[in-house]
Order: sequence, then C-alpha cells, then structure tokens
Amino acid sequence: MTTVTTGDKSIYTRRESEARSYCRAFDTVFTKASGSILTDAEGNDYIDFLAGCSSLNYGHNDPDMKAALIEHISRDGVTHGLDMHTDAKSAFLRAYENTILRPRRMDHKVMMTGPTGTNAVEAAIKLARKITGRRNVIAFTNAFHGMTLGALALTGNSGKRDGAGGTSLNDVTHLPFDGAMGEGVDTLEHIEWMLSNPSSGVDAPAAFIVEPVQGEGGLNAASKEWMQGIARIAKEQGALLIIDDIQAGCGRTGTYFSTEDFGIDPDMITQAKSFSGMGLPFAALLIKPELDVWKPAEHNGTFRGNNHAFVTARVALEKFWKDKSFEKDVQRKSELLGARLKSIADHIPGATLKGRGMMQGIDVGSGDLAGDICATCFENGLIIETSGAHDEVVKVLCPLTISDELLEKGLDILAGAVAKHTNNTQIAAE
Amino acid sequence: MTTVTTGDKSIYTRRESEARSYCRAFDTVFTKASGSILTDAEGNDYIDFLAGCSSLNYGHNDPDMKAALIEHISRDGVTHGLDMHTDAKSAFLRAYENTILRPRRMDHKVMMTGPTGTNAVEAAIKLARKITGRRNVIAFTNAFHGMTLGALALTGNSGKRDGAGGTSLNDVTHLPFDGAMGEGVDTLEHIEWMLSNPSSGVDAPAAFIVEPVQGEGGLNAASKEWMQGIARIAKEQGALLIIDDIQAGCGRTGTYFSTEDFGIDPDMITQAKSFSGMGLPFAALLIKPELDVWKPAEHNGTFRGNNHAFVTARVALEKFWKDKSFEKDVQRKSELLGARLKSIADHIPGATLKGRGMMQGIDVGSGDLAGDICATCFENGLIIETSGAHDEVVKVLCPLTISDELLEKGLDILAGAVAKHTNNTQIAAE
Amino acid sequence: MTTVTTGDKSIYTRRESEARSYCRAFDTVFTKASGSILTDAEGNDYIDFLAGCSSLNYGHNDPDMKAALIEHISRDGVTHGLDMHTDAKSAFLRAYENTILRPRRMDHKVMMTGPTGTNAVEAAIKLARKITGRRNVIAFTNAFHGMTLGALALTGNSGKRDGAGGTSLNDVTHLPFDGAMGEGVDTLEHIEWMLSNPSSGVDAPAAFIVEPVQGEGGLNAASKEWMQGIARIAKEQGALLIIDDIQAGCGRTGTYFSTEDFGIDPDMITQAKSFSGMGLPFAALLIKPELDVWKPAEHNGTFRGNNHAFVTARVALEKFWKDKSFEKDVQRKSELLGARLKSIADHIPGATLKGRGMMQGIDVGSGDLAGDICATCFENGLIIETSGAHDEVVKVLCPLTISDELLEKGLDILAGAVAKHTNNTQIAAE
Amino acid sequence: MTTVTTGDKSIYTRRESEARSYCRAFDTVFTKASGSILTDAEGNDYIDFLAGCSSLNYGHNDPDMKAALIEHISRDGVTHGLDMHTDAKSAFLRAYENTILRPRRMDHKVMMTGPTGTNAVEAAIKLARKITGRRNVIAFTNAFHGMTLGALALTGNSGKRDGAGGTSLNDVTHLPFDGAMGEGVDTLEHIEWMLSNPSSGVDAPAAFIVEPVQGEGGLNAASKEWMQGIARIAKEQGALLIIDDIQAGCGRTGTYFSTEDFGIDPDMITQAKSFSGMGLPFAALLIKPELDVWKPAEHNGTFRGNNHAFVTARVALEKFWKDKSFEKDVQRKSELLGARLKSIADHIPGATLKGRGMMQGIDVGSGDLAGDICATCFENGLIIETSGAHDEVVKVLCPLTISDELLEKGLDILAGAVAKHTNNTQIAAE
Repeated sequence: MTTVTTGDKSIYTRRESEARSYCRAFDTVFTKASGSILTDAEGNDYIDFLAGCSSLNYGHNDPDMKAALIEHISRDGVTHGLDMHTDAKSAFLRAYENTILRPRRMDHKVMMTGPTGTNAVEAAIKLARKITGRRNVIAFTNAFHGMTLGALALTGNSGKRDGAGGTSLNDVTHLPFDGAMGEGVDTLEHIEWMLSNPSSGVDAPAAFIVEPVQGEGGLNAASKEWMQGIARIAKEQGALLIIDDIQAGCGRTGTYFSTEDFGIDPDMITQAKSFSGMGLPFAALLIKPELDVWKPAEHNGTFRGNNHAFVTARVALEKFWKDKSFEKDVQRKSELLGARLKSIADHIPGATLKGRGMMQGIDVGSGDLAGDICATCFENGLIIETSGAHDEVVKVLCPLTISDELLEKGLDILAGAVAKHTNNTQIAAE
Repeated sequence: MTTVTTGDKSIYTRRESEARSYCRAFDTVFTKASGSILTDAEGNDYIDFLAGCSSLNYGHNDPDMKAALIEHISRDGVTHGLDMHTDAKSAFLRAYENTILRPRRMDHKVMMTGPTGTNAVEAAIKLARKITGRRNVIAFTNAFHGMTLGALALTGNSGKRDGAGGTSLNDVTHLPFDGAMGEGVDTLEHIEWMLSNPSSGVDAPAAFIVEPVQGEGGLNAASKEWMQGIARIAKEQGALLIIDDIQAGCGRTGTYFSTEDFGIDPDMITQAKSFSGMGLPFAALLIKPELDVWKPAEHNGTFRGNNHAFVTARVALEKFWKDKSFEKDVQRKSELLGARLKSIADHIPGATLKGRGMMQGIDVGSGDLAGDICATCFENGLIIETSGAHDEVVKVLCPLTISDELLEKGLDILAGAVAKHTNNTQIAAE
Repeated sequence: MTTVTTGDKSIYTRRESEARSYCRAFDTVFTKASGSILTDAEGNDYIDFLAGCSSLNYGHNDPDMKAALIEHISRDGVTHGLDMHTDAKSAFLRAYENTILRPRRMDHKVMMTGPTGTNAVEAAIKLARKITGRRNVIAFTNAFHGMTLGALALTGNSGKRDGAGGTSLNDVTHLPFDGAMGEGVDTLEHIEWMLSNPSSGVDAPAAFIVEPVQGEGGLNAASKEWMQGIARIAKEQGALLIIDDIQAGCGRTGTYFSTEDFGIDPDMITQAKSFSGMGLPFAALLIKPELDVWKPAEHNGTFRGNNHAFVTARVALEKFWKDKSFEKDVQRKSELLGARLKSIADHIPGATLKGRGMMQGIDVGSGDLAGDICATCFENGLIIETSGAHDEVVKVLCPLTISDELLEKGLDILAGAVAKHTNNTQIAAE
Repeated sequence: MTTVTTGDKSIYTRRESEARSYCRAFDTVFTKASGSILTDAEGNDYIDFLAGCSSLNYGHNDPDMKAALIEHISRDGVTHGLDMHTDAKSAFLRAYENTILRPRRMDHKVMMTGPTGTNAVEAAIKLARKITGRRNVIAFTNAFHGMTLGALALTGNSGKRDGAGGTSLNDVTHLPFDGAMGEGVDTLEHIEWMLSNPSSGVDAPAAFIVEPVQGEGGLNAASKEWMQGIARIAKEQGALLIIDDIQAGCGRTGTYFSTEDFGIDPDMITQAKSFSGMGLPFAALLIKPELDVWKPAEHNGTFRGNNHAFVTARVALEKFWKDKSFEKDVQRKSELLGARLKSIADHIPGATLKGRGMMQGIDVGSGDLAGDICATCFENGLIIETSGAHDEVVKVLCPLTISDELLEKGLDILAGAVAKHTNNTQIAAE
C-alpha cells in the first residue's frame, strides 16, 4: 500500500464507477465544510451555490445540529432502529407537528419511506394507484422525480430514461408544464382538453405529480394560477394531487412548502433533500389521513428510521421554523438575488430569468455557454451548476442561511464569469 | 402544546402512516442502544436478535465508529457532498480496496448509488439491461429486492407486489429457488430447461439476480452447487450474474461476501444494510470494470455521498476485515448458533433448521406459532422476528459481534418461548 | 327443434354475446343486398349509408365480382392456401402492381397479414419497432386502429381501452390530431415541441401512425399541410410514417390512397375494409422495400391467403382503377354530398360539416341528437350511423358506386330526420 | 405489361413481403383444390397433409358447401353485414346451437370476434382480465396463440416473440405444459406450487389458456388427468379456464371439441381455422353466459359477420355433426394413422410418436432431418410440414375426410422419405 496524500484522486478513476458526475466538474478533494463555504485539501475555499442540490438549505454543519447530533451519538442514542419508536423519532414527529403541520392546519400523516427522494415518490404513486384503482399518472415535461423505475417513468430527461435499458417506463402520461410551450400557450387548456376528451387515449389518471419549481428541469416555476388549475383538474378527474417538494420545499422558495401561498390542498407531498437539516439521508411522504390506507409494511425499507436525521431535523425545525423570521429573511434575500441575477441577465443577449425564491437562475440560451460560465466560476472559488433540458440554465441554489456578504461575493464571481464569456466588461463592473 | 414523556407513543398513531410495522410488534420507545442491547424509555434492556434486519452486524454504536464520527463532525468534515471527492470518501474507497477487493483479487468498481438497497438493485438491473439490450431479468421465488418499482418487480411477496396498485411489474421471470420445491426437485434442471427451450416463452435474460441466502423469503440458503449452476447458466445464456448481498453480505454468513467460497465470479454485487458499519444509510453496487459503461450521472441521486457513512464504514473495514480473526469468530459462533437452534427445532414437530452462518432460524411450520414465539420473546426481553412466505420462520439475525453470553441468553429466551407455545417443558431445561 | 321464420331474432338474445352492436340499432334480419340497398326478411328496402363501415365502397354484391367468384368456386379454385402461391393470388398481385403501385410510382411490397385491419396495424408497429429499435409509437387523439392489444394501445376511445381489463396499453404516446384542440391551435407545433424537447418524457418514436381521415373518431380530416408536417417531423425524428388507410382508402376520399395528393411518401400503408372489393375479410400492409426486413413467418397467420378475396379484389382493381373515370365520379359525388350536408347542417344551431370526399358528416353537437336522427332515418329506410368521441357526428359512408338518385333519396331521409328532431320543417322542404 | 403464365412466380419476389413462408417450402403455383388434393399450374397433384394448418378438416371445396355458397352469392345474399342480423347468420347460429351446444349441454354464448384465431384469443384474455380484475394470464411453454400483441405475449416461440421489436409482452406467466420437462416430471405439481406460494412472484391469474394439443409447439397432447388438474387449479385460484381449440377443435382429435371427453367445463373456448368448414376466415369465442359481461361493441371488428362463412359453416355442421358417424370415422382413421406412424417411427433411432387423433406426427429428433423428410415428400407429391420448438416434429394434419386410400398413399410417401434420409430401406417396403 502506497502512502497517499489527502488530495490524491487516483482512487476515483481506479475504483469509482463512471456514473460519478459532480466530482468531474468540481475536480478537487473537499475536506471541510461550514455554512456556505467548502474547503479543499489545498486549503482553497469555495462559496457553495449548489448546496447539495438544495439539500443544505441551512448550510453545512450548522453548529446547533452538530452539537445535538454529537450529544446523541455520545450518549448511545439509537442510530438505526428500523421503524421502531425511539425518543429521537418521537421528538422529531412532535416538532414537525407543532412547527409545520399545526400552524398550517394540515392534518397529513407522515410516512417514513426509505431516506431518498425517489423512494418517497415511488411510495406516493403506489398509494395513488392503490387508492384509485387507476394506473396512469400525469407527470410533466422537464420533470425530475428520481432514478428508480417508477420515478424514472415520471422523469422527462431522455438521458436518464435511456438508463432504463429498454424496459418500459409505463403508465405515465407527460403533459406540458406551465409555460413550457412559450408565452402564448396556456398549457392548462391543453391538459384539460386531453383529459376531458374521452377519446384522447390518455387514460383516467390516478394522480398528478408536480414539482412547483422544476429544479433539474431548468428552474421552471409554475404560477399560482396554473397550480390551482392543476388542483382543480385533478379533483374533477377524481385524481390525487401529489406535490413533489423535494427540491423546492424546506424554505427554498420562501415558505416551508413551496405552494403554501397558492390556496391549494395537496393530497400528498414528498419531502427529502433538506428535510434532515444537515444533509443526512432522510425523506418522507405526507398523506392526507383519509388516504393513509397502507397495510403495515406494504411499502417498507431498512433505513426508514435514520435517527441521526431525526435529531438534526428536529433542531432545524426548532431553530428555523418556530416563527416567521427565517421565512422573511429568505424572502428578503430572494429579492436581492433576483435583482442581481436580472442585472446580470440583461447583459446576455436573449437571456431570461428563471425560478422563484432562492431557486433562481439565468437561462443563458446555450448549454455550452452555461457550462463555460460555471467552469470559470469554479476556477474563481464558486461552486455553481447548470440545469435544464439543454443544461442552458445557470442555477443558484445557495444555502438559505448564506450571509449577504457571501451571496454578493458569489454573485460577483458569477457576473465576472458571464462577462468573460460574453466579452462584456460592463457586467463585472456593476 | 402538552408536556410529553419520553415514552409517550400517541404521536405515532396521530401522525405516522399506517405503513409503519416493526413498532407494532416491539411496542415501546427505545432510547439507547449499545452492542447487542437496546434499552427503552422505562429502562428495560432487550437483546437484539434483529439487528436492523442485518444492518447492525457490528452491533449498535460501536465505540470506534462513534469516536471517528464525532471527530469528523467536530472538525466540520463534509457531511453532504453529492458525489464530489472528499477526504472521507477517498479514505473509505482506499480502505475498501485494500481490505476487501485486493485480498479477494476483485477488480470491481464501486458505484455509489442512493443509500438504500433498493437503489443499488435498481442500478444493477438498469445496467444489465443497458449492456445486454435485453429486458427480461430472472429473479427467484421468495426473493426480496426492494420496494421501488424495478426492485418490486423482482420481489416475490404478493403482499408487497399488491402495493404497486395495479401497475405492471414487467420484464421479470420468477423461477424456483434452490430447494424451493422440496427435497426431490432439482430446480436447476427446471431453470435450465426453461431457458434452453426457445419456445418456453421466457425471453433471453439480461441478468440473473440472486440472494445467496433469502432473508425475507425464509432464510433459504442456496447451496454452492446450485449457485455454481446459476453462474454457469447465466454465462451460457449471455446474461449477467448479480449477487444481491444486501442482507447476507458484510460477514453475515461468515465471509465478507456470502458467496466468496463458492468459486463463482459475479458480474455485479449489491451492498447495503451493514455496509456503513453503524447502521447509517449507505449502499453501493460493485461492477466488473468492463461492465462499467454508465454515462456520467446516467443513474444519479442526492445522497450518493453520505460522508458520515464513509467514516464509519472505513472504521468497520479497518477494525474487522484487516485479517481473518473476525471471520473465524463469526464462523465459530455460527456453529454454536446452529447447534442450539437444532436442539430447539428438534422439540417442535415438523420443524426444520433454515439458513447459514449467523443467518439461521427455525421453520416452525406456521406463521401463527412463529408469531406467538416472537411475541413471548419480546415480553421476555428478546427482539426477534419472523420471515418466510407465511411468516413461518423464526429468524436469528443478532449482531455478529454479540458475546457468547448474550447469544446464549437470547437463545434461552427463544427456547423458553418455544417451550411455552409447544407445551414442551423439556426444551427450556436443556 | 322448433320451426323458425327467417325473421326470428330470438337466437341472438339466446346465443350471441352482448358484445354485438350494430344489430341493436338496425334491429331487423337482412336477407339480400345489392348495390346500395339492403333488404330485410319482411321485404323492406334500406338505403345503405354505412356500407360496412366503408367495407363496401363498390356496393353490395357487385355483379362482376359475383360472377368471377362463382366461376372460381365452381372450378374448384383454391379457397384456402395459407400463404402459398395460387393463380388467384398471382393475378391479384399483378393487377395491384399494374393498376395501383406502378401508376403511382410506388415500389412498396405487399405483406399479406391476417385478413383484418387490426392485424395489418399490428404488423406495421411490430415492424417499425423492429427496424428502429425503439418502442414508442405516436398515435393521435380520437384515433381508432383496432381491438387487439397492440392496436388498442394506439386507439383513443376510453370505452374500447377499458376492454383491456387493466393490462397496460404501453409504448404509445397520444398527441393531438389536426384541429383537435380547436381553430386557433396548431397541433403540429405542440407535436414538434414535445418531440424536440429531450426532457419532455416522450421517448424517441419508432413510428407515427395516422388515419388521414379519422372515421370512428368523428370524421376528422387532416389537412395536406398537417400531414406534410407529420411526415417532416417523422423524418427528422428518424421515425417511420405509417398511414392507416383502412377506412379512408380504396377510393373513399376520391383517390385510391387518401393521401396520394398530399406529396408525402409513407413508409407503410395499411389496407383492409374495401380492399377485397366485395366485403370479404382481407387486409394487407404496404412496406417500402428497404424496410421489408421480416424473417419468413416472423409475423404469420392462417388466413393470409383468402383466395376468394384475391378474386374479387382483382375484379375491383380492373373494373374501377384502370383509368381515372371512377375517381372523377367519386369526386363529383363528394361535392354533391358536401353541398347537401352543408345545407342540412346550416339548419342545426352550432352544427359543423366534418370529413372529406365520400366520408363526410355533420357534427350535430350532441350524441343524443345524433342518435335520434339515425334512429329516425332507420325507421324511414336509411341505414346511417354516428361517430366521434361523444357519438355526436352523423356520418355518411355510402357506397362510392351509389346512384345520384339513391344518394339524394338517402339525404332527403336524413334531412327529414334532422328536421323532425330540430323542429325545423324548412330543411326537408328544400 | 408483359404476358405472364399462370405458373410465373416472379411477382412474389418482386412484390410480396419477405414474411411469406409456406410458399418457400411448397414452391409452385396451385390452381385447383378438391378434397385432399391440391393441383398446381403444371397439373401436378399433391396429397395435402397440411390442410391449411387444420383449417380444412372437411377437405378443399366440399361440394355441398360450394353449392350452398354459390346459391347464396347468386341470390344476392348478404356478403358483409358487420354484425347485423342476417338470415345466413341466424341459420348458422341455430345449427350451431342444435348440433353442437345442446347435444353437449353447453349453455355458452357465441361471440363473433374478428375472423382470425388471434382475435378470438385477444377477446378471451381481455374478457378474463375485465371479469377478474387481474392482469396475469397463465400460458404454457411451446404455446402458440397468435401474432397480435396480446396473443403474442401468450405465445412461447422466441422467433415470433422477437417480432414484437422490443415492446414488452406483459402480464403473462409461462409455465411448463404437460410432459414438457420429460417423463419423470409432473408439471402440475410445479404449476400448483408456483401458484399456491404467495411469495413466488407469480401474480394471481385472471385465466389459464391452454391448447389441449399444441399444434405449432410440436403436437404435444395434454392428458385428461393434466387437463383436469389445470381445471381444478384454475378454479381454486379464482381464474378462468380458456381452451384454445383453434387448431385441435372441429373434430381434429375425434370429437368436436378436443376436450369434450375430459370431464372439464371450460369457461371460454376459442374457435377458428376449420370453423367455417371451407377455409374461409371465421372465428368465434364461446363464453359461459354468466361471463358475457361485454358492453356492446366493447370488442368489435369490421369482419365479425362473414356471411359466406356462415353459409359454409352451417353446411359443415349439418353434414358432419348431426350424428356420431363422422366422429367415429375420424376415430377409426386416427388409429390407422397412429399405427402407421408408429411403425415408421420405430425405424428412426430415438424417434417418438406425438399428438392425438388426426393430429399426430413423429419427433424425428432434429429439425434438419424433419426438414429433409418434408422436402422429399413434396418432391414426391405430398404436402407436409414440421412443428415444434426446433422444427423437429413431422406433423400430419390431413383433412379428416381423406379417403383411406389417399391417407395410405400419403403415408407411403412419408415412409419413403424417412427411409431415404435414414438410409433405411426397410420402412418403405412395409
């Protein structure tokens, strides 16, 4: 065995599958992370505008979560308990009831699925099919719901779908998302027509599953009116409404759930990513109580009870969601972010602002340009990624807890990279 | 908000989905766990013969893993890093290469899938279909591979399958496992005949996926000869051999991989459950290098890089797998366990011994009897569960690190429960 | 055994399945048929505006076909020869080559499928999937392609689809037909967008299958521009273009193939219904020669060689398609039909004219009204049916050989029925 | 246009799809057919031991059927009437009731499906799924049920299945047919075990579909005991029993239905091939009245009412099935056939007799040998084909009406061909 330095990356080419991805764009070895900063083995700091794809809404290694977790581990608190009752689980559920469900007058029950988003999505569509006796699920263009077969069938991206290797991705109808077909086209009309025509070939749906803001799909934000329309059509069709809030939830858009100001009443909501607060694997499905017709263990999983996540998730709820102050701060920063992005976008011919809340970005018109911008950002100490069907959107997903100073600094780096690749010196100067 | 005691369970009926399961059989609130003992809010200790369904092969809260994890958290080590390089990940991969892969002359690459077993299984079958251009996968009767749609299609249990709510569980052929059809029937012959007959209606398979010991299916252990037969047929058919070692791996059968003494060369191996060492969510797929044809992110996931799990998994490898001593101790205990179970089984009319290594149990002939035995065990301080198509097998899955004393004590409780429910006072006395 | 009269219908309720349909609307026993007239057991004559759903384009029992068929039978010509060479088959193929293929410069090959339209459709999509290695087929809203599982998946009607009893109707994407979403909406744009967006969730198609005029779907006639657009998109997508000409072909729209004036070059064309000339079961699939990659018997069937149909089909070709006179006469009648229908439609509030050629009708706005009109027509000696998603279209499908006198007489009956049910005495008077 | 002779075959290579098959083995142009003799353009006579794959049980061009059909055509009887009542249809149904259903105390209803076997099969499985609410259908190894997607999923042959071009052949489980796995193996036990094990992965079936004698699959004849076992298991499972009697019915095995001496009570029976008597396309599904829950037109089709077939089918019923004499003659000939085939088989090392009734043949051990034998037969004036998974069975399917003289003559030719290819001069001499 040879001596290796911390920064040695040969093990990855030698032993990690070609499926690895982010490490290719951000090709260094990270050793520390705190708040909005990641540090690599050479001691370089990077501002994190990716935040674990929205899994680190409260930043890296929040000190209160760390402390609670260390205390839990130190005292031999249960780490793995399948889905047995534990004090950590009880405390989490009580905190979730008190800070999230009751204040929003939600009577949903919490299903502990496996700790990944795709598992929560699979549970949701299984339950919807079981309840309605229908197979078809309406998903939307540019949707991303996961990589396991049921969730992959809901996902739009052809590159991901090809990974199924030729097996059928069945029982899903993809219809156009809000705004997908351009300014003039009201996609609600299209959806309603397809579902109300008994000869359209679209079978009566068990459910609609919607990301209120499509993160992977290009930061497409559905309007309140469109979401209300979908809720109405679902009800008319006898279908359930599933909100996939895995990326847009946990405060990302300025409220805990991304649709809580929309006046709709989802039958199910999926949660994952930032749900544990600290980036630990954790997911759940919220279900209206009358729909909770699961038989015991009908959908199960070994890691439904990640007690470490219960601990940190409880701290997150108590620290950030006891009152409105965090939400207000996120909303304030969202405006700041939007304004800065708009001024940057104004210097790119044809560019448009995308997204909502702290989930905004710029459609720069081409995947090549977006990729170049992100690469330059990384060289200059900013971790930021693209999204969209053609990777054409530069996406800001920084921690919601980021300081104004770091947010501005990160946006300066972004502006500089845009200036470089658009030969526009004016932007950086602003 | 009312004051609640630690042991209050009302939150579960009020807010957790009916899908919850283990907490129904073990209806108390656990607050501490160490080694092979779980402790509840009233201070009662329970010997753990379930071990998180084989997720806690090294016991609860191993002190070295705890220490390393606390150190990592304290120094702001990366918690969530998507699939970026981190020092914790590098160290884990190097340890895995040095303690597991190289000594076994395995050139497999490691694919970090989502941190659940079902995700590793989904990745395996996607890849097998992609490589072979075939859709059909051979799975076995009584198999359990997970709850997401692709894995569920591979799973035999009708109760679980019904959860799909009527959507097709496609592109899988279930064939009889070793011994499934009773003593006289060589299922290999059946399998071979079905696959070699070009008019059998069984399409050419992309892969065979096998649990060498079926944990959920009733502790059915495939023989070396049968596994070799499956490996041979797979090769003849141009199909890949996928070993699902999620429950039987990580030392459970006495070796790190459950088939490493079988003289077969699996194309892919799934790992999860005890893979992190400490019960944290963590899974991976081992892939022969020539089969690693994934495109970057073609199968991805938010929690592919659970750095806490990297830390504890590395400690587990270094502590238990640097030499043969742990394996030998497990093999010694396996014999002890087998002998005691046999003597208990001998007092139950028609009962048979099932399983292999530290994954053994007794088929007591009926689910009712098995359930009664487990319930009595719990009353007497032992956590133990059933498995099998009719829940007819009482299954011992204690930590591999259990002391002989606790193992004997647990088996005494089991013997007593058997005696009670078979009205046989002799057993307990032995 | 009791004595029965010719007109006794008790055998049907006693012994025929409830699946029977047309006999419910036209509840008499027919005993004779000639040209455009059906005669029942009581001697009542009915003008036939249904013509076997376009299977009798040349009318009932054409004397030349009759004579040739009787001659063939009398001389022990082969009746059933599987797909072996027979003189009747040779003569048919030569006539088809000379009258249809060569004059239109078509190099297609003829695949004798089973003698039903659905079988030709199934063959077409199997071949398209085999050639392209893709599974997805684009079909259209309100499409009707048959009742066997592959064709049913292409069919839009939910009542028909429900007959599948819950099995998946896979690997088909239904997109909106020309004009389906109303005047203002260019469905080509929608189709193109869905297929060019790599994240739409619509997998790359093997083929587009289109009825140029949707018969069952409500006499929706695609425009030349739209069909050209579909042909262009198919080519861009690497997908094959399948024209389902089963109902609209054989002269129904004024030319032999319904798209021959459209400047498109279909990869495959399905033919059935009037293909035999005399209403005998007979179907075929035309395939561009470079696409004829079938292995012998890879798609087979017992009744691929209906020699009686070869005889009558040959007569039909020689009698009606040797020159342009028949086409011109059909086109002349089509104008006459259109004009009369328009004047009838003008008296029904909100009614619109549908269709093309001798495949026209009136959308009267409601299935109830359309049903009432057809029922009254039958009472008055006219056989005519509805179509459309809501059965809202009164559809004229009379023999193309109908005399002007009978055509006018039938339309008079229709006008009278419309007048009765719209309380509009003016129509009939015209 | 060039002058062509009757025997010119260039049109086929020029214009018929490569899917054509029988014409390759029997490469001449037939011009006449009568009884058991086909005659080609050169005036050569061939004894027909193929009989349209059992579509010509009453021989070619039966004079009574011819006469009735010519009379019908001459008097302008209805040719095509969709599924409307006609005198020809009434007369057929009454004859069927009187000669077939009532004497066998069957209360089944007759569903007129499209005129092909595959259509009747598709209707049967649709109905079974609709009734039971289950998707899975049990089909058997080596089964052949048709080429449309639903029937193809039931078919075992991989060459045929590959024609689906990669789309899933879903919701079918193939289990081993009677005797499929060799002498010692009771496949009923296997089937029963797979279906009674709730964790086998085989979903509860909607139906079992069985050919009592597998024609294409190699003349595998199920025993009475096995068929009774399947009937019992189906009942226990709440599944319907569908007998596919398309090839084995209409007297082929010595009784009208091939299982009428088996003491079972099928829920549905498919009929086609010889159903029309004269080889015209015609099929039907028999349904127990309580299962006839079709909605009108829920399964429909243009050619459900082939009135020419009604006419000839009625004559067949009245001529051959009014009393037991025809059955007795078929049974007599079956013994004769069996004895001759056995004596031929005895001279081929390893050869075995296959089949039942007038559906017998010799498994000669290899497809090459079987092919050579059939080719030599054709040279010597006998049309005969192979079947089986490896085309290893030489299959006799002559008309049931064949004279003893022609039957012996045909068997002499067969014996001579066997002698030639096994270098055994003794056979022919016998």
